[in-house]
Amino acid sequence: MALTPPPHTTTEEEQQHNSNNGCHMNLALSHNCTGEPQANLSAVINHYVHTLNHFNLRNLGYPGNQNFNYDALAPLLQFHLNNAGDPFVGTGCSLNSTSFEVSVLDWFANLWNIQKDKYWGCVTTGGTEANLHAILVGREQFPDGILYTSEDSHYSIFKIARMYRMQCVKVRTFVSGEIDCADLKASLLHHKDKPAIINLNIGTTMKGAVDNVDLVIKTLEETGFSRDRFYIHCDGALFGIMLPFFKAAPKVISFEKPIGSVSVSGHKFLGCPIPCGVVITRSKYMNASSRDATITGSRCGHAPIFLWYAIKKKGSIGIQNEVENCIANARYLHNRLSDAGIGAMLNEHSNIVVFERPLDHQFSRRWSLACQGNIAHVVVMQHVTIQMLDSFVTEFLHKRATWFEDYGSFQPLCIAEEVGAANCSCSMHN
Amino acid sequence: MALTPPPHTTTEEEQQHNSNNGCHMNLALSHNCTGEPQANLSAVINHYVHTLNHFNLRNLGYPGNQNFNYDALAPLLQFHLNNAGDPFVGTGCSLNSTSFEVSVLDWFANLWNIQKDKYWGCVTTGGTEANLHAILVGREQFPDGILYTSEDSHYSIFKIARMYRMQCVKVRTFVSGEIDCADLKASLLHHKDKPAIINLNIGTTMKGAVDNVDLVIKTLEETGFSRDRFYIHCDGALFGIMLPFFKAAPKVISFEKPIGSVSVSGHKFLGCPIPCGVVITRSKYMNASSRDATITGSRCGHAPIFLWYAIKKKGSIGIQNEVENCIANARYLHNRLSDAGIGAMLNEHSNIVVFERPLDHQFSRRWSLACQGNIAHVVVMQHVTIQMLDSFVTEFLHKRATWFEDYGSFQPLCIAEEVGAANCSCSMHN
Repeated sequence: MALTPPPHTTTEEEQQHNSNNGCHMNLALSHNCTGEPQANLSAVINHYVHTLNHFNLRNLGYPGNQNFNYDALAPLLQFHLNNAGDPFVGTGCSLNSTSFEVSVLDWFANLWNIQKDKYWGCVTTGGTEANLHAILVGREQFPDGILYTSEDSHYSIFKIARMYRMQCVKVRTFVSGEIDCADLKASLLHHKDKPAIINLNIGTTMKGAVDNVDLVIKTLEETGFSRDRFYIHCDGALFGIMLPFFKAAPKVISFEKPIGSVSVSGHKFLGCPIPCGVVITRSKYMNASSRDATITGSRCGHAPIFLWYAIKKKGSIGIQNEVENCIANARYLHNRLSDAGIGAMLNEHSNIVVFERPLDHQFSRRWSLACQGNIAHVVVMQHVTIQMLDSFVTEFLHKRATWFEDYGSFQPLCIAEEVGAANCSCSMHN
Repeated sequence: MALTPPPHTTTEEEQQHNSNNGCHMNLALSHNCTGEPQANLSAVINHYVHTLNHFNLRNLGYPGNQNFNYDALAPLLQFHLNNAGDPFVGTGCSLNSTSFEVSVLDWFANLWNIQKDKYWGCVTTGGTEANLHAILVGREQFPDGILYTSEDSHYSIFKIARMYRMQCVKVRTFVSGEIDCADLKASLLHHKDKPAIINLNIGTTMKGAVDNVDLVIKTLEETGFSRDRFYIHCDGALFGIMLPFFKAAPKVISFEKPIGSVSVSGHKFLGCPIPCGVVITRSKYMNASSRDATITGSRCGHAPIFLWYAIKKKGSIGIQNEVENCIANARYLHNRLSDAGIGAMLNEHSNIVVFERPLDHQFSRRWSLACQGNIAHVVVMQHVTIQMLDSFVTEFLHKRATWFEDYGSFQPLCIAEEVGAANCSCSMHN
């Protein structure tokens, strides 16, 4: 995500952005000292809360819903809650929240069409731990299996392959970011002697592309991979919760298909102060020895309560409304950018708007945009309002004119390679 | 930790213990529904808080300090804070707490005698992730290295070996739980051709035994392992923070010795609502490619603030007082059990009292005791008062007489194999 920022003047506010979190207070922890008075500690925290509120006004690039209210859960900060071990077996630690956790897992199992007695799962510390767990299940099924994943996959998938000492084959994608099944087919045929462990992105981090699960299964069949020789994991990071709530969309993620596991981030769509995730797999894969050993030993007891609370408070009808609203606002942003002559792309069933990257690093930081090569993205979550989007577009257009001045001529970046010629506004493709 | 409970009658309170967390409310999450009114949600949470307070009265067996107050941090529940990536490089997510995190890491680095510019570290989701990170650093140094760890190690170490596809050699321990360096020597000599990655317990989960770091280093030297052929990781789970505060104790954990990394649980001694941990390693091991890839991608921003707040509020003098108090109370419990004729053991510099396991599973659950084979333990943390210990011993003695009645004669369990004949009160060893 490295960008080479063009020359710019730095305002005071921008300088604040340059520090890790705008926290200029002296946070150093001394040795050989007595405790700090409560008033001093509270002052530091209050100042920090103030800076967080400031940053939240322009928080556009990260797929975390910041629109939540968990005031009712504040009394739970009095306790260390620990769900160590298997949530279904129960933990020896009496201060746990496994009852909440199992309710949350049942809800996700139902969402993804698998019966209570057919699944195993747990609430994890995030999407990555959920993927770690799922891919380990796949590897335990097929110790010599090859991990296939698209080049648009999150870098953690490649890191997991290295950690687990698995052979990993990177599969090409279309400009949309979706896995190219023709390339997958060629790779599968090239490695027919080894079982296939396939990680699918539902959807990708940068472009919000959804790999076609049905087409991948068809490709496996066509290349002679019988069901006892492949394992499919669906990495549902952000969209794993959203897609089932699309009225018109087919059941993209469903255990009625021959998939082995699904993971999702808990904090992304539902919103949660701390990162968390969910992994659901088929109980048949979990033998006695692996059941009691989740990836992390001690497991957060608060995260399942946050998730339970969010689901209960919204209700599925509330969730559906939020999904529809995010998609509508993403379309609004996409239209506004396109109308203004800025190259942009929005995949179907996605709230991730990809566009020509701003040339000013400070502008990107100010709006917390995630950038990669020539493109940037905004993830239109629940806290992103039309008003925020309008401010963003107005400021972008204003600044953009200046950047091009610096470069001597008004010449939009060509992003055809990243998002296709049809979505590019450069002089050649416009 | 499985126990076969002898026949017993179940009281209502005990039945409540049998459920995962005493939460009898209907927590089910429906589909196709509207959201739940706030009042209903608050009622569930209030009831849950009530049961947690109830359990906390007899919370003796788990090494988590429940004596903390983070009310001042409640406003932070309004934000999703994410320290994704390397805390020193900074994250693209503007809502982060990396400034707090780096202060915490600096404090631990100082505690374990390594200079700021010589270490790398991060706050993790718990001791297990910290171990995952550290052992991966070891394996990256020595791809064909063998992992040595004692038979008293936490099961997660063996799970990590399987995850990472590392050859693992289990080393014998003394009855204290400390690694037997004679056995380590024999194993090292048997595998002289491969580098050694050694996991040391500071201390062990069940008995609180501290592996002798200096003796292990001497053993490596004696067996011809030069410093470029071994990597030592110190798993400081609970004691990693406590030991440096012993006035009389030598520097057990110190990067002045040829060790590669140290991990510790954050929630155990310092106390924290959510599980967390810290790992510190030498910066020379972290090349550019691995620096940006922590084990979990999204990382909790709240945990470092809890740790920062705890350290700042207590001050090092406060921490030292707490350490001394825990040790004194542990000695009190050990004496009371021994005086009452119950076999018990307490290692030096440890707050973990090991004793003859109660024969009644419900009694163990009521006091949240961790049991293994013929022994159980109490971890005397900050929330464990003399009054709690007195109640526990009184009830234990009262119940114990009943259990032996059930068995027909008063015959204490022999625990000589687990804790040594000198600590056993059975008829043969008393």
